[in-house]
Amino acid sequence: MTAHQIVLGLAITDGYGALHGSWRAPHVPADAYADIEATIRHARAAERGKFAFLFTPDFPAVRGDIEGDTLSNVMDPIVSLTAIARATERIGFVATGSTTFREPFNQARQFKALDVISHGRAGWNAVTTSDPAVAANYGRPVADRQERYQRAHEAIQITQALWGSWEKDAWIRDKDAGRFLDPEKLRPINLGGEHVASRGPLAIPPSEQGQPVIFTSGGPSPHLLTIAGRYASGFITEVWTIEEARAQRRMIREAARDAGRDPDEIKYIVGLMTTVAPTVREGLDRRIALSGGIIEARLPHLNAMLGLRLRPEQIDDPLTPEVLAAAHSSPADPRSGIALAVAREGWSPRDVLAHGVIDYHPTVVGPGERHADHMQEWFEAGAADGFWISPDIYEDGVDAFVDEVVPLLQERGIYPSEYPGTTLRENLGVPAQYGLDPRIGDGGGAR
Amino acid sequence: MTAHQIVLGLAITDGYGALHGSWRAPHVPADAYADIEATIRHARAAERGKFAFLFTPDFPAVRGDIEGDTLSNVMDPIVSLTAIARATERIGFVATGSTTFREPFNQARQFKALDVISHGRAGWNAVTTSDPAVAANYGRPVADRQERYQRAHEAIQITQALWGSWEKDAWIRDKDAGRFLDPEKLRPINLGGEHVASRGPLAIPPSEQGQPVIFTSGGPSPHLLTIAGRYASGFITEVWTIEEARAQRRMIREAARDAGRDPDEIKYIVGLMTTVAPTVREGLDRRIALSGGIIEARLPHLNAMLGLRLRPEQIDDPLTPEVLAAAHSSPADPRSGIALAVAREGWSPRDVLAHGVIDYHPTVVGPGERHADHMQEWFEAGAADGFWISPDIYEDGVDAFVDEVVPLLQERGIYPSEYPGTTLRENLGVPAQYGLDPRIGDGGGAR
Repeated sequence: MTAHQIVLGLAITDGYGALHGSWRAPHVPADAYADIEATIRHARAAERGKFAFLFTPDFPAVRGDIEGDTLSNVMDPIVSLTAIARATERIGFVATGSTTFREPFNQARQFKALDVISHGRAGWNAVTTSDPAVAANYGRPVADRQERYQRAHEAIQITQALWGSWEKDAWIRDKDAGRFLDPEKLRPINLGGEHVASRGPLAIPPSEQGQPVIFTSGGPSPHLLTIAGRYASGFITEVWTIEEARAQRRMIREAARDAGRDPDEIKYIVGLMTTVAPTVREGLDRRIALSGGIIEARLPHLNAMLGLRLRPEQIDDPLTPEVLAAAHSSPADPRSGIALAVAREGWSPRDVLAHGVIDYHPTVVGPGERHADHMQEWFEAGAADGFWISPDIYEDGVDAFVDEVVPLLQERGIYPSEYPGTTLRENLGVPAQYGLDPRIGDGGGAR
Repeated sequence: MTAHQIVLGLAITDGYGALHGSWRAPHVPADAYADIEATIRHARAAERGKFAFLFTPDFPAVRGDIEGDTLSNVMDPIVSLTAIARATERIGFVATGSTTFREPFNQARQFKALDVISHGRAGWNAVTTSDPAVAANYGRPVADRQERYQRAHEAIQITQALWGSWEKDAWIRDKDAGRFLDPEKLRPINLGGEHVASRGPLAIPPSEQGQPVIFTSGGPSPHLLTIAGRYASGFITEVWTIEEARAQRRMIREAARDAGRDPDEIKYIVGLMTTVAPTVREGLDRRIALSGGIIEARLPHLNAMLGLRLRPEQIDDPLTPEVLAAAHSSPADPRSGIALAVAREGWSPRDVLAHGVIDYHPTVVGPGERHADHMQEWFEAGAADGFWISPDIYEDGVDAFVDEVVPLLQERGIYPSEYPGTTLRENLGVPAQYGLDPRIGDGGGAR
């Protein structure tokens, strides 16, 4: 890994796709949520496209419209990714694991076991959890922010210390001498803070990458910036504009520098939703076909974003020059500028909405080139080190991205043609670490 | 699955074997502990022998002589068994999971996800944890017995209720109607007790066996008997004599009856260590070759068991008629009677010890027939419904058992020639259950 190149991750959720209604597409298996073989197909497609990692966002509670929509999680991040690890060779795994509702010893043990079994391909997206629906599943109240982040520092430090508690050369395995392990090199950590503690050691040897890679994710609050700056090798976020992304990336890199690290040690990965189709029109039709009533339901939101008063019966009429002249983007919503730009291309309100202007991430619809252009622009503007891709429909959307977008990125020299190495750390381009980072003090953490 | 037949499980630990020094055998890979491929070979061998399940005992702390001996655990039960699930078709998995140190929601989620991914082959060995070394890894004091068992009742009930919270016909998946799930059939459980609670629901559909099978294990204290009687379909134990085993099995069955269940719903599974060899002599030599100094070190213990005062230099001399006449078994140690019977066969003290008379379980050494005889005797005496096998050395010991012992059991009609079904529940011969057992009241549990 020499040149600075884009890093790609693939969001792995419930097996259907990012598009509302993706589960209803005729070619999508209706039971993909419970069928690990479906997700394995998507993982293998991403591996064909040299994706560095699969990423399982996780919200361990049921929310939203479960009657009309799907569940947005894998059944269980560790179980699902372990199964996928057995069916892949190079792609990494970044599993979300709550610092609030999991025991550090269990978390450390499962992630390092996955790392060893996958030969150095595991990463941990360490996040705090504040949602009352999740807290209720653990029979606990929501802790305040100060407590959640204090526990997060403690949990991450304990986890990393446990990972390092089996020293790299502890495992002697000398059959003749009858020495299995050097007891001087598998030792307790005796680390604890206000909320969690562990004695250790953890009896798991180093993997090919030493220990799992730490990620974190969310909006860059001061609390989260401290977590990211001190521990994370990857920061996963949702951001709408290049300007906002550049500012965030600068903050993240500054946080790493403040913690005594090289800013290049942390990769800033932004979300992107994709619909790869021969033409924009075909892409929009693919999206509209599965949208159910959601596009119509979003018209009032589009009106608010653009300062318009379009009526439902106008949803299929291209916007007139007069309407467009009156339109303006709402400063309250970062997506408004994108919506306005799309509207000015002459689409109907339905088509504007089908562009994904009111979704979780920026969305690209159309030929591979449009996707490659988007990523190249963000990457070269310093707005992202990489992207985590949420395809509209997994079943064919990953293959389409790999076949139509990846080759363009490779031709442009901004994406690798082969995996740089065999481990997640190598494929991300982040440095080795084993145990706690000696550059990071214990301020605010476990001791 | 018609006749009453023996159920077999294979202990899965660190990849080496039950014999002290197994890791030093020339044909054993020294890195088996971290090499899941080694354990997969053993699992596949057991599957060839129609074993109903793999069982991972688990002690989540480092103990004992790690310099000279191995670690006695898999790296992580859930991660290891999920990886093995992908490499096998029929064999089940019984993973130990602490009710004391794991969150019920996480436990319920991971076991049911493994159950779905393995198409109905998962079981949970639900145990309390009282060891200070384990508690220290979680930064907590050891809770008293009353509290541990109260939490265990709550944790098991919450887990089973979460498993049933996705009702069997909740998943509509009607693409035309746009109905994914019936929200009336995926509902909160709102169950809690003094120590743990969860709102739910858990968004995982039924597996082919509905939900994981509950096991428990340990010595039959009154507290554990209540757990076993109310919830368990399998009871895993270590017991030395037929008499003791019959008495325990009666107690377990009585506990099930007391809880309103049919005693045949709970399988009593006893431990057995195996060395399959063409002759007893060859088996003893295989064991002695790897024993390091442990046999010599155990001579004083043998003296105490038999009321003798043998000196180290006598370890290779067969016991004289005078010594044997003076020997008597110590009533303080249930293994003494076995040791005395072996001594009377005319072996030297070294050979008596090499018979495994001071080990965790009864040990059989020699031809397949001796193993089959042992199991048949216990089974027909009502001392066991099955056995969990700890082979001396995994690398060839599982194959030897499958090739030399299993066919004899099959010829004798006391062991199945094919898997009775595809799920753990079918292969154990235990009835269906989904959610909480309606026959079990909530006395002492969650509410």
